[in-house]
Amino acid sequence: MSNIVYIATSLDGYIARKDGNLDWLNEIPNPDQSDFGFAEFMQRIDGIVMGRHTFELVTGFDPWPYTKPLFVLSNSMKDVPLKVRDKAELVHGKLSSIIESLQRKGFQNLYIDGGKTIQSFLKEDLIDELILTRIPVVLGSGIPLFAEMPLELRFEHVETKVYNNMLVKSKYIRKH
Amino acid sequence: MSNIVYIATSLDGYIARKDGNLDWLNEIPNPDQSDFGFAEFMQRIDGIVMGRHTFELVTGFDPWPYTKPLFVLSNSMKDVPLKVRDKAELVHGKLSSIIESLQRKGFQNLYIDGGKTIQSFLKEDLIDELILTRIPVVLGSGIPLFAEMPLELRFEHVETKVYNNMLVKSKYIRKH
Repeated sequence: MSNIVYIATSLDGYIARKDGNLDWLNEIPNPDQSDFGFAEFMQRIDGIVMGRHTFELVTGFDPWPYTKPLFVLSNSMKDVPLKVRDKAELVHGKLSSIIESLQRKGFQNLYIDGGKTIQSFLKEDLIDELILTRIPVVLGSGIPLFAEMPLELRFEHVETKVYNNMLVKSKYIRKH
Repeated sequence: MSNIVYIATSLDGYIARKDGNLDWLNEIPNPDQSDFGFAEFMQRIDGIVMGRHTFELVTGFDPWPYTKPLFVLSNSMKDVPLKVRDKAELVHGKLSSIIESLQRKGFQNLYIDGGKTIQSFLKEDLIDELILTRIPVVLGSGIPLFAEMPLELRFEHVETKVYNNMLVKSKYIRKH
């Protein structure tokens, strides 16, 4: 079982502009319409875990980008919007309990998404794999992937792939 | 002419611990005593520019790590220590004027080093090349390579090399 982060950042470590805007990501030239390995990654995972902020962002995506069940971390939401009720489910409580419960239900490999959610998982050392794609831009400001925490985590480098001589995607696994 | 950054960071973007400690860098297993391309890089450059903090750190290095003249940015220092007077020289004033003056003296390719110095150069869009080496550790806190700035800088990816299946070194040039 693995909790996996799969995310793109600017060279200065931002995952979005301060207002959540991803224009700098979407503007990347992509003549071959590559998904840079995303479909292959989605096949590997059993479910997606994200926070409310990211969920509210992706509910606007058309077409729906995920082929696996989505679990939304929220202590305040009562229900997910009707149009995604067959795709997403609310979960709440302690992260470790949520993960245990999902694992018992057969969700072994989870895609952990969204800045705050990733940071919460890292703070509890619940991330087993980081797949980080570096975009060749220094944004100057934005929402950072990492937050300060009183914890140091070592990883092992597994592989690095370069896409379109532009994106550098590195895969790391937690070294215990 | 190029102003070049050549630096290692943790996955969360730190170049040193909060107290400047580089133990996490020095502890990297290196059975072949590789310099990960540093000597080759030093051959390419004509001089090094760094701030006082980094200078005070490197004056303690034995042996002296540089084969090219070093220019220390400082408005407060009166002189460099006697033991490095043949290797280092003080410079002060506006960054762009310092660079112009060094270029007139034949220093075309400059290695820009030290967190604050790199940030000052980036803020004035004076960096032409970034060579970033990612170390597979999340430090949790430290001195960051990048600072917030009201400026977005696009780069082109030139190449990525992986050393010891551990260090990921990517070279980027400024895209104007």
